[in-house]
Amino acid sequence: SLSLFKSSPEEEESLQAQASKWMCEPLTSLDHLQKNSSDMKCRMEVLIMRIQADFCRALEELDGEKKFVVDKWHRKEGGGGITCVLQDGTTFEKAGVNISVVQGMLPPSAVQQMRARGKKLEGENLPFFAAGVSSVIHPKNPHIPTVHFNYRYFEVTERDGTKQWWFGGGTDLTPYYLDKEDVVSFHKALKTACDKHGKNYYPEYKKWCDDYFYIKHRGESRGVGGIFFDDLDAPNQDKVFQFVKSCADAVIPSYIPIVKKNRNKPYSYAERTWQLLRRGRYVEFNLIYDRGTKFGLYTPGARYESILMSLPLTARWEYMHTPKKGSREDELTQVLKNPQEWV
Amino acid sequence: SLSLFKSSPEEEESLQAQASKWMCEPLTSLDHLQKNSSDMKCRMEVLIMRIQADFCRALEELDGEKKFVVDKWHRKEGGGGITCVLQDGTTFEKAGVNISVVQGMLPPSAVQQMRARGKKLEGENLPFFAAGVSSVIHPKNPHIPTVHFNYRYFEVTERDGTKQWWFGGGTDLTPYYLDKEDVVSFHKALKTACDKHGKNYYPEYKKWCDDYFYIKHRGESRGVGGIFFDDLDAPNQDKVFQFVKSCADAVIPSYIPIVKKNRNKPYSYAERTWQLLRRGRYVEFNLIYDRGTKFGLYTPGARYESILMSLPLTARWEYMHTPKKGSREDELTQVLKNPQEWV
Repeated sequence: SLSLFKSSPEEEESLQAQASKWMCEPLTSLDHLQKNSSDMKCRMEVLIMRIQADFCRALEELDGEKKFVVDKWHRKEGGGGITCVLQDGTTFEKAGVNISVVQGMLPPSAVQQMRARGKKLEGENLPFFAAGVSSVIHPKNPHIPTVHFNYRYFEVTERDGTKQWWFGGGTDLTPYYLDKEDVVSFHKALKTACDKHGKNYYPEYKKWCDDYFYIKHRGESRGVGGIFFDDLDAPNQDKVFQFVKSCADAVIPSYIPIVKKNRNKPYSYAERTWQLLRRGRYVEFNLIYDRGTKFGLYTPGARYESILMSLPLTARWEYMHTPKKGSREDELTQVLKNPQEWV
Repeated sequence: SLSLFKSSPEEEESLQAQASKWMCEPLTSLDHLQKNSSDMKCRMEVLIMRIQADFCRALEELDGEKKFVVDKWHRKEGGGGITCVLQDGTTFEKAGVNISVVQGMLPPSAVQQMRARGKKLEGENLPFFAAGVSSVIHPKNPHIPTVHFNYRYFEVTERDGTKQWWFGGGTDLTPYYLDKEDVVSFHKALKTACDKHGKNYYPEYKKWCDDYFYIKHRGESRGVGGIFFDDLDAPNQDKVFQFVKSCADAVIPSYIPIVKKNRNKPYSYAERTWQLLRRGRYVEFNLIYDRGTKFGLYTPGARYESILMSLPLTARWEYMHTPKKGSREDELTQVLKNPQEWV
């Protein structure tokens, strides 16, 4: 390999061979991806195409019945995406795995958001590039948690031509009933992925996740957390990429065993109703607080169907619903109000 | 009556007699309301107590089965409210009628919002008073539209002690299937209420309603509109109050006949599913765009259960759902994409 970076097994496999397993043709031509294989824009696109395909295949195999519908879309301002959705399956009620590779000019509201979180960006109308994979899986059975992950790479060119880049992402779990064993194994899988790259990563990004996925008006977390980070640009581009790759590769081992363990558990109408109420909270977080959703919906030419793919098939809101003290629903609620250390 | 204003029949009825019909005791003592009966704060509280009771009784009578649960709540920062909810009834899936009478200091975000829409307010940490009634009715039968109304009175005291006041409000309809006769009768009832007070009111506030209840990312309206206005402070306080009173009194004649006409219509599973999808759009508007919801949730000490009472019992999101061309679902969608004149 001519790459300056340590090559991993899949980088040794020919790009053609890799691409044959993807959900569809990539947004950028294979020829361009090949010729620019050390450009991070291309490396990231290749990574997210593989992550999308691996995860979709793993879910299809588990579902048994339904296959992912694959929608490739283009954005008139530049770039596009590939949205894969499996709806109303046997195991999965709604599963979405989306990748996008977009470029254009940052909307002023996005620049403002970036500056608000401490980024120094000189000038207005800044050209940007963003590539990421984003997924939310809502299973049918209330004993299987919902999972969400998102890994993304960003480039912004400032007025004077200097280019800033950073990575962001995370994986987090939203159970309807608390199974401590599941939560611990999920966090352990993420910790293992983090620990290879830095001993402080897991504790820092675990806390960041708890802080981010917080439904402020209710004083409770969306779920039992995981990891979350943004604006990561050190120690260097390759090292951050390797870290992001490890995290993205940890999604399957962290989640699929939990699905397998719980998919055949029987459940009652009351448990299903509780799941729908919790999904109402999921909707509240995503529509009121989530930065990605807001950034997405406020971006001109946004493909709202791909952004809102994260919403559950069904959600419920009951006035003043409070679980009975000591019930399993109350047990979960207490943990959501008081985030814990799991490993 | 000692009132300086032209008294209407209910102002002639003793306050005790009026209060005996309310959903519970008011937040302010009857004695105070009596002694300050020409203060707009008190007049508005008396009005919203009556509007709440009239509407709740009319809905209970229609539902036949369920009664409203009445929750009186207090806000530690000052004031409180009375939330009435009827859930899972025969006719109504979720009906909420809330009044609130609150005072305290305006949060800086609220001041910013008010300035953004053109209000001149001098100083920080401004004392305010707000009294309003707010209601959303989600019926079970997809042939009955959802209705929403809200009428409110606001006072803000500026740094130099000058007091600003204004009224806001509106009533609007969200059908799942288009019945032109219903939409026309609804708009006519609102127009009749408006016309008594100013010939330009209905056309102006009809347009304002179309502009406000707009789901920007989808390029469609939440419903078929109605009226909406804010910052109304002319020609004088009594005249604006009389206008608001007429609008609030028009809710029952504009909506109840539509419920009666459609409540016994049979409906299919497909029609119910379409209703739930449209309720998903309702949730999108309320959580992403609605000023009242945002103002509410960002206010310290907000009672989120009363604010989120507007959300339906159940909502649904299907990826890429598009009604068949020429279907009744498509007919509604076309109207939501192209607001019409109904009277």
